[in-house]
Amino acid sequence: MAKQRSHNPDHSSAYPAPVRELLEELARLPGIGRRSAERLALHLLKSDAADAMSLADAIARVKTEVGQCPVCFNFTDGDACAVCRDERRDPSMVLVVEQPRDLISLEQTGMYRGVYHVLLGRISPLEGVSEDDLTIGALLARIDTPERNAGGARVEEVILGLNPTLEGDGTALYLQQAVAKRGVKVSRLARGLPTGSQLEYANKAVLADAILGRQSVR
Amino acid sequence: MAKQRSHNPDHSSAYPAPVRELLEELARLPGIGRRSAERLALHLLKSDAADAMSLADAIARVKTEVGQCPVCFNFTDGDACAVCRDERRDPSMVLVVEQPRDLISLEQTGMYRGVYHVLLGRISPLEGVSEDDLTIGALLARIDTPERNAGGARVEEVILGLNPTLEGDGTALYLQQAVAKRGVKVSRLARGLPTGSQLEYANKAVLADAILGRQSVR
Repeated sequence: MAKQRSHNPDHSSAYPAPVRELLEELARLPGIGRRSAERLALHLLKSDAADAMSLADAIARVKTEVGQCPVCFNFTDGDACAVCRDERRDPSMVLVVEQPRDLISLEQTGMYRGVYHVLLGRISPLEGVSEDDLTIGALLARIDTPERNAGGARVEEVILGLNPTLEGDGTALYLQQAVAKRGVKVSRLARGLPTGSQLEYANKAVLADAILGRQSVR
Repeated sequence: MAKQRSHNPDHSSAYPAPVRELLEELARLPGIGRRSAERLALHLLKSDAADAMSLADAIARVKTEVGQCPVCFNFTDGDACAVCRDERRDPSMVLVVEQPRDLISLEQTGMYRGVYHVLLGRISPLEGVSEDDLTIGALLARIDTPERNAGGARVEEVILGLNPTLEGDGTALYLQQAVAKRGVKVSRLARGLPTGSQLEYANKAVLADAILGRQSVR
């Protein structure tokens, strides 16, 4: 094909405009690069119109129908969230997490029967996130005014479930002081060796936690 | 937390229904597992409603506005596709590819100035795809009836650009016979060592192609 010479290539116009626009929208999603966006767009082009439309609808619905629980800031498609509404839960125990994702992970253990409070972040001076940017005020209001807690119950224990990071620990310290001041019991999720791991590969901080937090087995 | 006992976990209800539906739709996409679907859904939940809606709209638009070029079966948002409409292209030369994706890749080289024909697959006895399931009839019609080709031009050369696989080669052989019978020149994309590769790592088939297809450099 030696006789072919490069003409103005105008790559982007190789796809029709609606495809290019979809590519751009998809490439904006986290973890979706240009190549994945292209694979997804071509999949959507090939798939049944009904299937593609139900994805479009699901995206639209999630934005119009899902909000925040007024009590704990978990996702909800109604007023209070499924956890706060559940009468089998013990609303006197409030587990504080950073994000709804953390709540879901804890729920999946099936081991916790209290309720939650989602901070929607952690105190992060570096990112300019202060205590006022989080839902700490609403947490303290649940403690001070039982009517604002799930089922109108008095909060008796706050369990700190922030991430075991520098900023999570800083936020936990702040909360610990604010909550203890109100005469409410404060605990935090246990730290130690992750089950299934190998001691020889654990780092110093994990080993230190495991030693300091050693649990009696008598 | 020894006093906590596992209660009915009901994991799936941890997310509100619209979020679960979005998770299911996302997890259906190719290369998107359960975890990625969750990350994408949580991103959409957090992002501006306007951003999420423009993704939903882009998906809907691509299904309503993008169709197939009646000449070459490339994607198009109008009648004939951008390549077939482009008067700078030479419609006497038709490069046959399996999928629109292949056409895009070839366009991105900027080295080809003819037009295309997208088969929308390859003959695959194992997957039950026969010659009648592809757009081979339309390709032959473009040759037999110049009015059905881009710009009403007579087809003088068909370049086979199928994938260098067993099924691609089988399809190429079928096309070669059908096209040659019509007195039209048939060629295929060159095979040989991929530029940038190392000879010592090339497999036998590639080396055989390179030897048999050796190109004169005088």
